[in-house]
Amino acid sequence: MSCAIKSPLSGIIPPLVTPLIDNDVLDKEGLEKLIEHLIEGGVHALFVLGTTGEAQSLSYKLRVEMIKNTCRIVDGRMPVLVCISDTSIIESVRLSYVAADNGADAVVSAPPYYFAPGQPELAEFYQRLIPQLSLPLFLYNMPSHTKVNFAPSTVRRIAEDSRVIGFKDSSANAVYFQSVMYAMRERPDFAMLVGPEEMTGELVLMGAHGGINGGANMFPRLYVDLYNAAKERNIEKLQQLQEKVMQISSTIYTIGQHASSYLKGLKTSLYLLGIWSDFVAAPFHRFEKAEQMKVRKALEELDMDLLLR
Amino acid sequence: MSCAIKSPLSGIIPPLVTPLIDNDVLDKEGLEKLIEHLIEGGVHALFVLGTTGEAQSLSYKLRVEMIKNTCRIVDGRMPVLVCISDTSIIESVRLSYVAADNGADAVVSAPPYYFAPGQPELAEFYQRLIPQLSLPLFLYNMPSHTKVNFAPSTVRRIAEDSRVIGFKDSSANAVYFQSVMYAMRERPDFAMLVGPEEMTGELVLMGAHGGINGGANMFPRLYVDLYNAAKERNIEKLQQLQEKVMQISSTIYTIGQHASSYLKGLKTSLYLLGIWSDFVAAPFHRFEKAEQMKVRKALEELDMDLLLR
Amino acid sequence: MSCAIKSPLSGIIPPLVTPLIDNDVLDKEGLEKLIEHLIEGGVHALFVLGTTGEAQSLSYKLRVEMIKNTCRIVDGRMPVLVCISDTSIIESVRLSYVAADNGADAVVSAPPYYFAPGQPELAEFYQRLIPQLSLPLFLYNMPSHTKVNFAPSTVRRIAEDSRVIGFKDSSANAVYFQSVMYAMRERPDFAMLVGPEEMTGELVLMGAHGGINGGANMFPRLYVDLYNAAKERNIEKLQQLQEKVMQISSTIYTIGQHASSYLKGLKTSLYLLGIWSDFVAAPFHRFEKAEQMKVRKALEELDMDLLLR
Amino acid sequence: MSCAIKSPLSGIIPPLVTPLIDNDVLDKEGLEKLIEHLIEGGVHALFVLGTTGEAQSLSYKLRVEMIKNTCRIVDGRMPVLVCISDTSIIESVRLSYVAADNGADAVVSAPPYYFAPGQPELAEFYQRLIPQLSLPLFLYNMPSHTKVNFAPSTVRRIAEDSRVIGFKDSSANAVYFQSVMYAMRERPDFAMLVGPEEMTGELVLMGAHGGINGGANMFPRLYVDLYNAAKERNIEKLQQLQEKVMQISSTIYTIGQHASSYLKGLKTSLYLLGIWSDFVAAPFHRFEKAEQMKVRKALEELDMDLLLR
Repeated sequence: MSCAIKSPLSGIIPPLVTPLIDNDVLDKEGLEKLIEHLIEGGVHALFVLGTTGEAQSLSYKLRVEMIKNTCRIVDGRMPVLVCISDTSIIESVRLSYVAADNGADAVVSAPPYYFAPGQPELAEFYQRLIPQLSLPLFLYNMPSHTKVNFAPSTVRRIAEDSRVIGFKDSSANAVYFQSVMYAMRERPDFAMLVGPEEMTGELVLMGAHGGINGGANMFPRLYVDLYNAAKERNIEKLQQLQEKVMQISSTIYTIGQHASSYLKGLKTSLYLLGIWSDFVAAPFHRFEKAEQMKVRKALEELDMDLLLR
Repeated sequence: MSCAIKSPLSGIIPPLVTPLIDNDVLDKEGLEKLIEHLIEGGVHALFVLGTTGEAQSLSYKLRVEMIKNTCRIVDGRMPVLVCISDTSIIESVRLSYVAADNGADAVVSAPPYYFAPGQPELAEFYQRLIPQLSLPLFLYNMPSHTKVNFAPSTVRRIAEDSRVIGFKDSSANAVYFQSVMYAMRERPDFAMLVGPEEMTGELVLMGAHGGINGGANMFPRLYVDLYNAAKERNIEKLQQLQEKVMQISSTIYTIGQHASSYLKGLKTSLYLLGIWSDFVAAPFHRFEKAEQMKVRKALEELDMDLLLR
Repeated sequence: MSCAIKSPLSGIIPPLVTPLIDNDVLDKEGLEKLIEHLIEGGVHALFVLGTTGEAQSLSYKLRVEMIKNTCRIVDGRMPVLVCISDTSIIESVRLSYVAADNGADAVVSAPPYYFAPGQPELAEFYQRLIPQLSLPLFLYNMPSHTKVNFAPSTVRRIAEDSRVIGFKDSSANAVYFQSVMYAMRERPDFAMLVGPEEMTGELVLMGAHGGINGGANMFPRLYVDLYNAAKERNIEKLQQLQEKVMQISSTIYTIGQHASSYLKGLKTSLYLLGIWSDFVAAPFHRFEKAEQMKVRKALEELDMDLLLR
Repeated sequence: MSCAIKSPLSGIIPPLVTPLIDNDVLDKEGLEKLIEHLIEGGVHALFVLGTTGEAQSLSYKLRVEMIKNTCRIVDGRMPVLVCISDTSIIESVRLSYVAADNGADAVVSAPPYYFAPGQPELAEFYQRLIPQLSLPLFLYNMPSHTKVNFAPSTVRRIAEDSRVIGFKDSSANAVYFQSVMYAMRERPDFAMLVGPEEMTGELVLMGAHGGINGGANMFPRLYVDLYNAAKERNIEKLQQLQEKVMQISSTIYTIGQHASSYLKGLKTSLYLLGIWSDFVAAPFHRFEKAEQMKVRKALEELDMDLLLR
């Protein structure tokens, strides 16, 4: 059962962590626990199989299971967005069918991430992909992983097709985000969504529609409050909440030395909060004890009352 | 005659374009015209010999002249910051003497930009530099040109010395800016200044102190209004002004194909606005006629009444 | 029917272009023509589903077909290497089963290419992968696409497992190649193979074992001659052949503006040489007429007698 | 007294380390010792104020002293090349005067390294610079420090002026080096010189003219032997010497964690070999004791007889 997306899609849309028991075994119970935790936390939609969802590390079988189970558990209570990013257009289309068949509401796609396309090639890729999809599409900018940025004019060109209903940007570059927002200024129905939680508040103040923020897996209420404070232009409150967001970012996400620290910190934290196992798919692995202790300490120093109320 | 800096330094601080008659000839009349234009426009301080000032393209003789003439013209009417970035610590120190002798109020320094240092080396560089300076120091993050970012912890470490009074960030990375702001949260006297004008508004809302924005050379009033709207938390007005800022950014700065387009667009625009010659120092050169026409068209489409009142 | 690999694997091993009729339709006839062309040209082994083979752009169904058909056509006449690079370890293992079941001789794997691993993570990834493979493994360094280089010490660490029998480097960095060769100097059975044909000759002179060179799809004899000249230390002849290689590289591969130019030039050239269709899988597409004309001109200027004898 | 350069300049041309007593104090005695050591070692020319010479870290006063003293000590016994790379064309020209006045034989210039130029801008920069020089010019490609590569066609375009007599490439990219060599194939008088010593041997075999190799400061004879072996096409001997070169590269240059490790390792090694002080200019500093011990160990493991005979 699907749930129509109001345009533009707005609010906090957690990029779901994929709970795992082993490399190819979904933790269905953990997933249920997580989704209920997020719904209670007041989030506005869910986004599965993104970077935080470790989609590229998972088998296709498991990706399919993740779509099915999420749609089943959510059961129309809020929109479900499914990320279908792939290096192969055919595999992307196939995942979009699974999403549609299971009642998801939209798909999301980052550029093919092996052989980086140029801008005209990027536009053509989407012009070929879109007619094969039966769900509306969000574009997903993730240059640190795909090696390419959508030029603002490329976003506008692709979005001439009305089936393209929004844009998620994980570049962390605010000049770039403002440029895309400006390029799309005559499309008030086009959702502008922010990846990094550290800059969601300020960009919602400036007109962005919401955040696809990893930290919302842990503390959905905090990010929903941040979003609401920005929507209500309550700067005082926004700054207070931003400080919590920065405390999380400066502690939990920066333990360890590799780019994967964010993911490991997030999964360890969810484990410590009692939500499920901290299994991380290859090529990564869960934190060792020493790092886990640091996450525990970071969590203790957060004001849990604020976060979990 | 100098003018003490109130801590933290706040407001709009244009990075002065360096008006040139030829590769090694300062346009003193143009400089006077520019500075009076900026003072009338209500800016809060001036920043000379930055990236926009083409400092690295200029001879040392001309850099010295630029310092002297700016200080002479300003004559204590507002603080003058002098950028002393150099690959050689000795040349940096020498420029700082010139700045101090001529009554400038502070110096600004980006990391040595030939052989990129690591973080401990960066901290040590400043620990060696600072005792040799007789003016307070702002750190200047400009990774696209220096190939290195100050880690937030490195900023904090360097700023343990109270002679370090602020930070300018031109990375365009809002997550990074928020991280440095968070790392420095217990130093309310430490100025957090934004390079890119496209993100100055949102960051002032979140607690930053101002912007070192190139566009303020052309339209100082626009950026001062933007800053004030953010200070007063007038979001409605801020969004309106932001649209103008983005119109400038999406037109004047993006003509031409190279990284130098920003600089050429800015200088051409100042020329067309009647402020002075559009001479650009080597390795760059002024726009050709075709590109100049595009700048003219971009200017015509801006609402000049708003900008120049 | 497989064909045991002599250690170290040596010679010219073309990375097969994947002949396509449409995005998901293998051109089996074209594949047969290509393989016979290569065998006649004297190549020493074949490498399928690499970067030149557009593997990441193909559906898994088509990748499986490509493995099956190549093994069937080759029928034990030379070793077949199958690239199983994937972001998911499970999908990599699955492809390795297909390779083994169809009689391929070895598999090849580049690092997971979405979320870049650190060096210890890279080593662990292979330590997990290797026990699940039933064929020997070549490591594949391709930093422009995977965003990570195997450190020489990481290669050595992974290659402690004797099932790892070689290394292909497409970094174009000769200092790096020499460093890995030096790190592996006590393993004379470990094959050091060069990706870029422009540097194969010189590195074979210095001790490398061969080249996985895209141009060998077009002119297998040229690259085999180059390899032989290097093996025989016939520098005079090597320099002559190198000039042809550089003529190809400086013309056919550099038409067009994007990173995909190499691939498009190669496929167009094969089409013009009468080998098959020039269809390129999404996100790319075949050259337009204007660019095709340039490839034709480049081919005409090559001394075909030399190349095709 | 100058010494005419034979075209093309060939052989081993050490990029002189700059011996320092303190940040702004040249060690003239050390310089004398070093130059005599190099002349005894049989090198073919000297290159001062390059990256290895820490030129950008030095004051202009010291750069001038370095030029003067080197020319004085060499006294026409071999060609002296002076690097005049600067971000300011005026300062570059000024250094070229100093070089000419003191009897140097040629100047060398890398692109302006603060604000990276595009290819047409790069060509124009040199077209403006060259007429102001009174010595012949070598171009210097150093993309890791300047953020820009000379396109092969840009080298050809700049070298249309016959005052441009050679090219030094420190990119480590052998495909690139071959491409420039191919683009310049009709200019047998144009010197193609290799920066990284790890790839000098193989490229001299393929037609390059020599190496500007940092390690030649320590062991000039080794690199001269390597060059001669390549010139004589004695592959056996070349491979033996290459192994020594790689041993040095894999030990002395890779102690420490930052890009400066190469420089620190080299200066420490020269100190331990008794040539002079290991003072490194800011932003760097000499190795600590622990790292110095590692350099000592690396030196002990080298076969000194071979190196210093």
